[in-house]
Amino acid sequence: MSNPLRLGVAGLGVVGTSLVRLLQRQSADFAKRVGRGFAVTAFSARRKDDRGVDLGGAAYFASAAELAASGDIDIFVELIGGSEGVAFEAVKAALSRGTSVVTANKAMLAAHGFELATIAERSGAQLFFEAAVGGGIPVVKTLRESLAGNAIERVSGILNGTCNYILSRMETEHLPFEVCLSEAQKLGYAEADPTFDVGGFDTAHKLAILASLAFGAKIDAGAVSVEGIESITLADLSAADELGFRIKLLGVAERTAHGVEQRVHPTMVAKSAPLAQTMGVLNAVSIDGDAIGELTLVGPGAGGNATASAVAADIVDIARGIRVPPFGRPAASLVEADRVPMQRHEGGYYVRLAVVDRPGAMGAIAARMGEQLISLEAIMQKRATKEAASAGVAPVVLMTYGTTESSIREALARTVEDGLVRERPQVIRIEREAI
Amino acid sequence: MSNPLRLGVAGLGVVGTSLVRLLQRQSADFAKRVGRGFAVTAFSARRKDDRGVDLGGAAYFASAAELAASGDIDIFVELIGGSEGVAFEAVKAALSRGTSVVTANKAMLAAHGFELATIAERSGAQLFFEAAVGGGIPVVKTLRESLAGNAIERVSGILNGTCNYILSRMETEHLPFEVCLSEAQKLGYAEADPTFDVGGFDTAHKLAILASLAFGAKIDAGAVSVEGIESITLADLSAADELGFRIKLLGVAERTAHGVEQRVHPTMVAKSAPLAQTMGVLNAVSIDGDAIGELTLVGPGAGGNATASAVAADIVDIARGIRVPPFGRPAASLVEADRVPMQRHEGGYYVRLAVVDRPGAMGAIAARMGEQLISLEAIMQKRATKEAASAGVAPVVLMTYGTTESSIREALARTVEDGLVRERPQVIRIEREAI
Repeated sequence: MSNPLRLGVAGLGVVGTSLVRLLQRQSADFAKRVGRGFAVTAFSARRKDDRGVDLGGAAYFASAAELAASGDIDIFVELIGGSEGVAFEAVKAALSRGTSVVTANKAMLAAHGFELATIAERSGAQLFFEAAVGGGIPVVKTLRESLAGNAIERVSGILNGTCNYILSRMETEHLPFEVCLSEAQKLGYAEADPTFDVGGFDTAHKLAILASLAFGAKIDAGAVSVEGIESITLADLSAADELGFRIKLLGVAERTAHGVEQRVHPTMVAKSAPLAQTMGVLNAVSIDGDAIGELTLVGPGAGGNATASAVAADIVDIARGIRVPPFGRPAASLVEADRVPMQRHEGGYYVRLAVVDRPGAMGAIAARMGEQLISLEAIMQKRATKEAASAGVAPVVLMTYGTTESSIREALARTVEDGLVRERPQVIRIEREAI
Repeated sequence: MSNPLRLGVAGLGVVGTSLVRLLQRQSADFAKRVGRGFAVTAFSARRKDDRGVDLGGAAYFASAAELAASGDIDIFVELIGGSEGVAFEAVKAALSRGTSVVTANKAMLAAHGFELATIAERSGAQLFFEAAVGGGIPVVKTLRESLAGNAIERVSGILNGTCNYILSRMETEHLPFEVCLSEAQKLGYAEADPTFDVGGFDTAHKLAILASLAFGAKIDAGAVSVEGIESITLADLSAADELGFRIKLLGVAERTAHGVEQRVHPTMVAKSAPLAQTMGVLNAVSIDGDAIGELTLVGPGAGGNATASAVAADIVDIARGIRVPPFGRPAASLVEADRVPMQRHEGGYYVRLAVVDRPGAMGAIAARMGEQLISLEAIMQKRATKEAASAGVAPVVLMTYGTTESSIREALARTVEDGLVRERPQVIRIEREAI
């Protein structure tokens, strides 16, 4: 058996310490699997203090970049986070000198994935990032390797456990967004500033990575249209329920006639779809391929141990000598996918309106829809709450058949101009099940 | 770009022809992914006739073994099936001469997986078999590579689409087993002789493969306890529904204090569990690992295209130079897992009895349970049907808390001896959700 594989771990937060413990626990099995042991021989962290993990004689570096550039490690494990600065510089340094990198850093990959893949391929280093999307769920490897025989048509997923927890709680406990958000914060599922999660930006980073893997395209996070879950109300959740749907924050990347659509938004998902059945902090990804049909992976999208599981798998792969381009195809062959503006999105829409309670209002709204050639699949008018009635409005929910984003936006803009509704219309896209 | 990789395909049935078409469709993308093209340069089949696929100048072999032994192919793709005979001889011939093998043959692997892995490792050939379990679902790779950082605690799955179709139809349409079986036969989901599927044997082969991958043990299909779905009635399905469960044919491999349990049987699964939500011909596998928690994969478990998708992924892996022991660890390191007799299984039980309608009968049954220290979680006595009432029996359903198989069998044997029930008691094991 050769010398142990030398790991340099940058960042000893929850994931880093979980990883160190996992490597220790599994060391005998790893030696079996790859024919050599592993050892964390160097680490970097803000402070050198004890964190309850035994790092033995591992060398401490105050600077991640110095650790990455040191010639004494075989794999650089980046668990610092952040798209720029320390993490990015350190990863570049490691890859440039031919040291393979395992990272969980979705923000960095979303911003610089193509550049990093190019550097890795030039130096012969591997760049693996299973932990960057879906925590422990092996969705990166599935797209990169297991579905290599498929032309991928669509990837859609629940990629942020915070949002899924909040929406699940709102639905099952009938509690408003703000209450569920602060619960999530208390439980450690959401940050003090929750914008990155609830605004959909975290999902967008992950989606951009999956889209690159799925479509052989250069990663293009700027092409992702992003909406968060802040506007979702209990009225939306109960209307969804009556119509046979659940509301989930989905990231969807889809090949269309116009190019690759990438979008993150609250979505009406039929209750029978696997994504609809994913509740709480779990993540789930459905992949539609021309040969396989639909494949769905469900599991923990975050947490120290689950994320460490993904990091460890990448380390084992590298130790086994597995060589695969970071995004499945050589960087030079990745194409620039045509961006599809959200206005061109085609699909069904759920619309909730506070209609002014006067004769002919509904007829006028229907006429505005008709002008845009929008057909309605369902109209649901509920008895107004006392507040709504005294304000002279009637809550109405519409579901449209397939139309375009620009048509529905135009019809609603006219409806607002006409003074037919009191509040900003709520618009939620409907995701049909795979055909 | 080097010469195309030469594939020899043995067996041109549904999967074989789907594979040939997939390889042609994806040829440009494969060339990108691995830096060289693929070509089927030789094939074997019972007849040489046209099957609607263009095999160009590929050489025809009447004998799969001769094809496997010919030096003119880089990968031997075995799609013949059957545990012995032609397929086994051909695969041995290919591996012995160092030619890598991709196979979908679960029966052969269940019987000879360890021997084949040993031959492959000796000659330096790869032996990959993603298509053997779960059709297109990448469960083999997930266990072999993506969960390499986990000590696996349990693998449980719906591994036979025929059984899941029949149980789903029985449940949703309230049709008896025989009707749903003949429907499945008409739709091509079940063979004329359905025993291999509905008797649980197909599931057992697949489970034995997963258990080897999960627990680093030599494959041991003889250790699997097998029960089929033939005895499941509409009364069981409706009682399950009322109790919050669905009945699924599961394969379960589990590490216990006594060794590795491997069992296939109809199972009560809580409706909220991902496996319970898998309906129709879909397959699903849940894996519990110490780091990841629970991961579930859902997708098509059969069909030409989905299976070809898995075969193609293995071909791409081999073309990329990926080298991994067939069962994740070197054959020599695979252990002989202790077999756990079904009698030692511990869990909850659902029991349906046709109780003789006389005073004290239920009390006597409860006393027999008590003797075996079995606690009851639920007792459900329904108003008897006309037929049951006139036969003087009352249908009763019991659910037990955790006990052992031997205790419940003993209690029921005494109950039968006592003349307290009219029919053979129906016994279905309850699978608790992962903790």
